[in-house]
Amino acid sequence: MTSISIIGVGNMGSAIASIAVKGGAEVQLIARDAEKGAAAAVSSGATAATYGDALTGDVVVLALPYPAIAEVLATYGSQLSGKTIVDISNPVDFFTFDSLVTPADGSAAHVISRAVPGATVLKAFNTTFAATLGSGQVGGLPTTVLIVGDDTAAKAELAAVIQAGGVGAIDAGSLKRARELEAMGFLQLTLAATEKVGWASGFAVVK
Amino acid sequence: MTSISIIGVGNMGSAIASIAVKGGAEVQLIARDAEKGAAAAVSSGATAATYGDALTGDVVVLALPYPAIAEVLATYGSQLSGKTIVDISNPVDFFTFDSLVTPADGSAAHVISRAVPGATVLKAFNTTFAATLGSGQVGGLPTTVLIVGDDTAAKAELAAVIQAGGVGAIDAGSLKRARELEAMGFLQLTLAATEKVGWASGFAVVK
Repeated sequence: MTSISIIGVGNMGSAIASIAVKGGAEVQLIARDAEKGAAAAVSSGATAATYGDALTGDVVVLALPYPAIAEVLATYGSQLSGKTIVDISNPVDFFTFDSLVTPADGSAAHVISRAVPGATVLKAFNTTFAATLGSGQVGGLPTTVLIVGDDTAAKAELAAVIQAGGVGAIDAGSLKRARELEAMGFLQLTLAATEKVGWASGFAVVK
Repeated sequence: MTSISIIGVGNMGSAIASIAVKGGAEVQLIARDAEKGAAAAVSSGATAATYGDALTGDVVVLALPYPAIAEVLATYGSQLSGKTIVDISNPVDFFTFDSLVTPADGSAAHVISRAVPGATVLKAFNTTFAATLGSGQVGGLPTTVLIVGDDTAAKAELAAVIQAGGVGAIDAGSLKRARELEAMGFLQLTLAATEKVGWASGFAVVK
């Protein structure tokens, strides 16, 4: 059985928790705000934990805005060694909404990978709006999570949980492709922010 | 009436010519190979011309692989001043298929824009496979062309032709977003090349 710790109980963390529970994983949902965390845990069927508690999952989903990640990595430190870290962030410059804050030739996933060399880093969920994870569809087509990373087995394990949870998943290549996923996620955010697409719509993946 | 010169009669040039003719534009289709050009012109309803002939369109679509563009810009030189140039390229490194050949903080569209400072450059059509332009749909959803550029009127004129031609079009932001369009086009190509999506499928845009 796959065990997953999800740090963050915003709309993305909550949606991912629901999918993972439905997909048969043992899910720990970690919140700073105990009340909010308890509510999200009840709603998704996950086990609630408080920020700083030991991680019970072999897979750790950072369901947090990019600026919050460095502190989380520092807090959990060596506990992250040997884990699969799933980065879902879109590292947008929210002041200008006109660029990413990560280096042009890199990605948030690479920054995390360098910060935690003992972990396997995957990028996933950053191109699927929370509402499309919740409903399982984008414009009538099945929602598909794009997963990239350098560990094929780790990608397959995550994909299996997502698929068992009722959502599509595709191995979209190596961790180098995180750069393209982040560009696509950013573009989708700009389209939603300018009302060209809805927050329950966006990009669909058609096989 | 919008007048469009399309340089290149491959599957993208031919598909764009058909949409533009259907959309009510006056379309010149420019080929190096006169026989191939004549066939594509007949099929789309465009007027055939030979590479090097004077451009009749106010909008010039470079329907060519990225490596061919520099020579075309040199050949047409000052004729391009004052025109709207539409770049549809995906500047993929076809040896490695693992990166783009353009600078990480730039785009093919920016390279073209710097090479022809007297023209208005738009990026469009690079995220829609030719088959989805031909059929007008991706997985049952309407095909949508994403257009970026710094000239709102030029984007609106192109969008109007595309929409009149039966395909969706969205103004997806400034020319700076060409970088994200090229990342998305590259990602889509890698997914098709690895058979994760079909060449008549890929990314759909859901409003």
